Amino acid sequence: MRVDGRENKQLRPVHIETHFIKHAEGSVFITVGDTKVICTASIDDKVPPFMRGGGKGWITAEYAMLPRATEQRNVRESSKGKVSGRTMEIQRLIGRVLRSVVDLEKLGEKTIWIDCDVIQADGGTRTASITGAFVAMVLAFAKLVEEKRLAEIPVTDFLAATSVGIDPQHGVILDLNYAEDSQAEVDMNVVMTGAGHFVEIQGTGEEATFSREQLNELLETAELGIRQLIDIQKEILGSLAEQIGAKMSTEERVKEA
Amino acid sequence: MRVDGRENKQLRPVHIETHFIKHAEGSVFITVGDTKVICTASIDDKVPPFMRGGGKGWITAEYAMLPRATEQRNVRESSKGKVSGRTMEIQRLIGRVLRSVVDLEKLGEKTIWIDCDVIQADGGTRTASITGAFVAMVLAFAKLVEEKRLAEIPVTDFLAATSVGIDPQHGVILDLNYAEDSQAEVDMNVVMTGAGHFVEIQGTGEEATFSREQLNELLETAELGIRQLIDIQKEILGSLAEQIGAKMSTEERVKEA
Amino acid sequence: MRVDGRENKQLRPVHIETHFIKHAEGSVFITVGDTKVICTASIDDKVPPFMRGGGKGWITAEYAMLPRATEQRNVRESSKGKVSGRTMEIQRLIGRVLRSVVDLEKLGEKTIWIDCDVIQADGGTRTASITGAFVAMVLAFAKLVEEKRLAEIPVTDFLAATSVGIDPQHGVILDLNYAEDSQAEVDMNVVMTGAGHFVEIQGTGEEATFSREQLNELLETAELGIRQLIDIQKEILGSLAEQIGAKMSTEERVKEA
Amino acid sequence: MRVDGRENKQLRPVHIETHFIKHAEGSVFITVGDTKVICTASIDDKVPPFMRGGGKGWITAEYAMLPRATEQRNVRESSKGKVSGRTMEIQRLIGRVLRSVVDLEKLGEKTIWIDCDVIQADGGTRTASITGAFVAMVLAFAKLVEEKRLAEIPVTDFLAATSVGIDPQHGVILDLNYAEDSQAEVDMNVVMTGAGHFVEIQGTGEEATFSREQLNELLETAELGIRQLIDIQKEILGSLAEQIGAKMSTEERVKEA
Amino acid sequence: MRVDGRENKQLRPVHIETHFIKHAEGSVFITVGDTKVICTASIDDKVPPFMRGGGKGWITAEYAMLPRATEQRNVRESSKGKVSGRTMEIQRLIGRVLRSVVDLEKLGEKTIWIDCDVIQADGGTRTASITGAFVAMVLAFAKLVEEKRLAEIPVTDFLAATSVGIDPQHGVILDLNYAEDSQAEVDMNVVMTGAGHFVEIQGTGEEATFSREQLNELLETAELGIRQLIDIQKEILGSLAEQIGAKMSTEERVKEA
Amino acid sequence: MRVDGRENKQLRPVHIETHFIKHAEGSVFITVGDTKVICTASIDDKVPPFMRGGGKGWITAEYAMLPRATEQRNVRESSKGKVSGRTMEIQRLIGRVLRSVVDLEKLGEKTIWIDCDVIQADGGTRTASITGAFVAMVLAFAKLVEEKRLAEIPVTDFLAATSVGIDPQHGVILDLNYAEDSQAEVDMNVVMTGAGHFVEIQGTGEEATFSREQLNELLETAELGIRQLIDIQKEILGSLAEQIGAKMSTEERVKEA
Repeated sequence: MRVDGRENKQLRPVHIETHFIKHAEGSVFITVGDTKVICTASIDDKVPPFMRGGGKGWITAEYAMLPRATEQRNVRESSKGKVSGRTMEIQRLIGRVLRSVVDLEKLGEKTIWIDCDVIQADGGTRTASITGAFVAMVLAFAKLVEEKRLAEIPVTDFLAATSVGIDPQHGVILDLNYAEDSQAEVDMNVVMTGAGHFVEIQGTGEEATFSREQLNELLETAELGIRQLIDIQKEILGSLAEQIGAKMSTEERVKEA
Repeated sequence: MRVDGRENKQLRPVHIETHFIKHAEGSVFITVGDTKVICTASIDDKVPPFMRGGGKGWITAEYAMLPRATEQRNVRESSKGKVSGRTMEIQRLIGRVLRSVVDLEKLGEKTIWIDCDVIQADGGTRTASITGAFVAMVLAFAKLVEEKRLAEIPVTDFLAATSVGIDPQHGVILDLNYAEDSQAEVDMNVVMTGAGHFVEIQGTGEEATFSREQLNELLETAELGIRQLIDIQKEILGSLAEQIGAKMSTEERVKEA
Repeated sequence: MRVDGRENKQLRPVHIETHFIKHAEGSVFITVGDTKVICTASIDDKVPPFMRGGGKGWITAEYAMLPRATEQRNVRESSKGKVSGRTMEIQRLIGRVLRSVVDLEKLGEKTIWIDCDVIQADGGTRTASITGAFVAMVLAFAKLVEEKRLAEIPVTDFLAATSVGIDPQHGVILDLNYAEDSQAEVDMNVVMTGAGHFVEIQGTGEEATFSREQLNELLETAELGIRQLIDIQKEILGSLAEQIGAKMSTEERVKEA
Repeated sequence: MRVDGRENKQLRPVHIETHFIKHAEGSVFITVGDTKVICTASIDDKVPPFMRGGGKGWITAEYAMLPRATEQRNVRESSKGKVSGRTMEIQRLIGRVLRSVVDLEKLGEKTIWIDCDVIQADGGTRTASITGAFVAMVLAFAKLVEEKRLAEIPVTDFLAATSVGIDPQHGVILDLNYAEDSQAEVDMNVVMTGAGHFVEIQGTGEEATFSREQLNELLETAELGIRQLIDIQKEILGSLAEQIGAKMSTEERVKEA
Repeated sequence: MRVDGRENKQLRPVHIETHFIKHAEGSVFITVGDTKVICTASIDDKVPPFMRGGGKGWITAEYAMLPRATEQRNVRESSKGKVSGRTMEIQRLIGRVLRSVVDLEKLGEKTIWIDCDVIQADGGTRTASITGAFVAMVLAFAKLVEEKRLAEIPVTDFLAATSVGIDPQHGVILDLNYAEDSQAEVDMNVVMTGAGHFVEIQGTGEEATFSREQLNELLETAELGIRQLIDIQKEILGSLAEQIGAKMSTEERVKEA
Repeated sequence: MRVDGRENKQLRPVHIETHFIKHAEGSVFITVGDTKVICTASIDDKVPPFMRGGGKGWITAEYAMLPRATEQRNVRESSKGKVSGRTMEIQRLIGRVLRSVVDLEKLGEKTIWIDCDVIQADGGTRTASITGAFVAMVLAFAKLVEEKRLAEIPVTDFLAATSVGIDPQHGVILDLNYAEDSQAEVDMNVVMTGAGHFVEIQGTGEEATFSREQLNELLETAELGIRQLIDIQKEILGSLAEQIGAKMSTEERVKEA
């Protein structure tokens, strides 16, 4: 049994509270075990300069931690005057994966700003951010539809993320907390759609490597967790869930071409 | 009646939830109407270079807003690469007033880092931060006492803050929300101790001025609000409240000298 | 008697030399005891982006010290690559109080840049800056009137500032020099108009507090000093002084409404 | 046939010139098609502060492009005053994967600084950097051995990297050039060891997704390319290649535990 | 004889390889002994804001060193977040001297960006940069002529640079390498045209001085070296060399006026 | 006759007021026509890290302009967050030339910080800064001697600087004001010692060139001006002037060797 009593392939308890911040067009407070993140989606009626006039929308994300989200107080990036490499990687990832399930042409020339602020961290903050940000984004789109600024929710599929890893004692485990993450030999973040396709795989052996068999087990375990996360998203979104379309997969399009 | 139905000299509802962040030595989540702030107090076993070897402790504060704490999304200071003048003023203020009720010699060579992160803003974020940070700081000291790293809580008096202002329609009002703050001719932040002494008065007439009579009414109204805030702090702190000492006022010391 | 032989409620010698810098539209060199500040007012024929098209003018201020204005050489803010919190607080203060006595609609879409550069510091640099900057600003307006770019000087009242404090030995004292400032228990900066109204009060007990009675004595002492400073401004400005109007006080307007 | 006449699973021509920079302990000039990178390895006899006293070494990497490495001149990051998110991701990746094949305890408290400077870019700059940096690092270690500062080359296995992708026309292709990379629906960077284990997999569907079958084909294609790259590294390193050990794989160690 | 066996007034071997970078409009790889610099010239179809509408072109330069161009690894300026004073001096110098031999009116509203990146440094990097950048710039102009975007190459004369110095042992020497530069009492960089006129003289006695006679010898030695460098430029440029015009010297124009 | 009525080879009126800033160890206020600079010399009892333990002292300089020193208000470098290339060039120049007339071994491990702050600019600010900074530095050394922290003033010769240029109308002129500097075809700054040796020559033809004959006339004119400036320095320094030694010239030392 794992340090917190879970089975190897068991997620931590997940809760998503919607409409957490009154000013934001969409917002949630997601908790995955002791990891707690506020995700907001804000709508901006213009796109970045390099996209103007193209008729397509854009989704961009920012990620930060409160100084005391962690065991040791971390120095604010505003005080340091620069954003760390880790933060940049995470915010690029969040924006990229959300864009993969949005029909940016249908969105039109608008930018969705996603903000993921980690209130308390216990491993898996980037994957919790993605899972929560997806819901906040759908809520913001629903508001645009309600205000007749969009004809329909331009989301082609569900999207959620989790981490998997190889623990020196337990082998492949799902949804690592901070203590497990610190010890893991291999750490992998997986982002998948409701249709079961991959959007992003980032697997890393820090001072370690992994075989093809291990990779297969990691990916199956991740899929197991993500299916459950998407079920939670569906429940939270209620009738909005039915408005999320099914986009043709890349595989199908390649076959067609 | 005011925009939200309050009397001129009535506070908004105030709630303080303690132990909000598991990692921090002291933490609260304070809500004053729709203004919501997470305050944490972190203990560092050293003091800044300019104080080393002096045997005294230090208290310093940082303040920030989540991007979507406000009606319009505000750009992160970490993205801008610098902290605004407004933020610097507020964090200097919070640190300074907390130091006025702590016996820094008793604290010894430790730094207390106060972090006030505004989750949702509706006016009065700096005064809510002070009122909440005081409680978080006492909780952190209590933890040090519990761990036998301090003999007693080195706090000489209670401390809370509120805003008062002159509204073009209603005259002097207490605890301004954002809508009121935007219209006020005069805006004043007052920080007081449990003994009813002033620690800080910052009164400003933006494109306006105020008379001595108006000042008197502003100060009396502020005192009224602060007394209620300190009662709430006492209730929240329970038995810890009794361990907060009474420091001789500056006035008494000047008389003695 | 105080360290420099003054009475408790006595200002230091004040001199204001006008037209000190040939390029600036308005400029003075003000000395208050050993505190020496160059104040210039520069006219810019546009306003910041957030004000464009509104028909109103703007006044903004910058403040700096030469590295050797102080006993210990201080590192240039340009070398550090950022402006300190203290500097930001002071420049926000100077701009804000000057705006309170200018009719920004009459000024029209122009920005007045105030620069206060401390050549030598001995306490009270921010209040000397305000007192000097007011004169430099009036001189710049006079130039605009002379060049027929303004119909009249859009200044509604005089404005000056001084500091008061509570000294552990002498009690309430006026116009603190650096040595007194370092020892004061309470430090207060007061900005007032010619009509005797307050524009800004910033009172601070660094590791100390103050009572209502002490506050009253501080404010009366400040008023005494500011009246003298305004007399000096009037003398220096000569016939221009008569062109400075009397704006209705906030109190009167609230009564009317 | 692809835009440059290659088969789908064919690498571009690869050349590695060693000892390219006389000052560096190890250096190569690697060209992969029209992508050209100078890789140097520099030895520093201390480790970063967080590692001091632990007896282990460290490997860190920096990556940059000359302004005219690209079709459009790109602004220098030194002029912008900050390093982009993309650059940070790449340099973190290079350092991390090299550390996975070095026995940091054997290295002892030394830091190896890897610098990868792209002289000309045509896709795959990060994977060319890894493949080249591995050789530069081995050369630097060989120098340390020659100078008797190390007993043996502390490298446990070979390491190389390539990109694979899904092209809308050709399906899975190996070693994408810039034109192909711009059109690819899925882009994946794979880093593998001589033993055929994965060190890092980063697969991304920008505005697209991929299935498990596609993933399998991508990984097999990557492995094909990496085996050839490692053969080239072996040839270049000559007798040094025989001194590169075989580290037990993570899988084997997990099985043992 | 000097440390590398040269006569006092002998240049190091100089090679210029053209078209080194495929993307740049003009590029060379210049080696002067062990000093190696990539120089590119990029064309931008607009001028900086302060020059718009004036009908004239502009030439600006950037200069950098790879981290391991030097004996000790130097920290990247992008990591430091700022460009050093030395770098700024050099890039201002390169831009300024190139502008002196270009007819900016004939160029029209275009900017030529010169990038000089030092791959390996052994003294004289700024003079090698100037000598190489001149050739890269001419190649870029030739491309503009070829594409009919310019009627003729708007260059009025050749331009090259070298260093001279006073060595404590050998007296005046030409083209100092790093070892010689470190020991020199006086260091002088001279930039001259094909007509034998000076464009820039920068002579410096670091902790030393020099007499008028020494200055004369330094200048004559520099001229000797620059004549040879211009011969090399002519050879490399082949038939393009004949298209470089002869501009009337300042002396002649002053005489005429 | 020149724009301000001077002869071609005539300096502007020069005044040097000593002990201008009470806190600085040495200070002057130098005016050269309408160019006005405050120069201070501050003593720091340590040297920069790269010089520690070597027994030698260091001299470093900073230079800045007040925002309204110029006709158009210039933006503060502290607001821009970085120091311009021009500023860096000037401060490197000032430090370097002062070091050439100081016996750094005699000074011992101390740093002299020179600050040159331009209050009003009308051309020649860098040369006025050098001429004034020399006097401020001598005054600071005299203070060290008086306090018995130095045995003697470690200055080997006088040092002053002026500008010369080639005017399209008047030919070679001395000590250019701003209007002349803007029109000059060639601009040269010359720094010389009391013994008549050069320390620095920086001659630049911005979009122009100059011949050997013109160079000779420029240097002779500069020498004429510098001799007068050194006479003024001697008069101001009074008896201190006699304590400034004569250092053997580089030429003499090379001859001896």
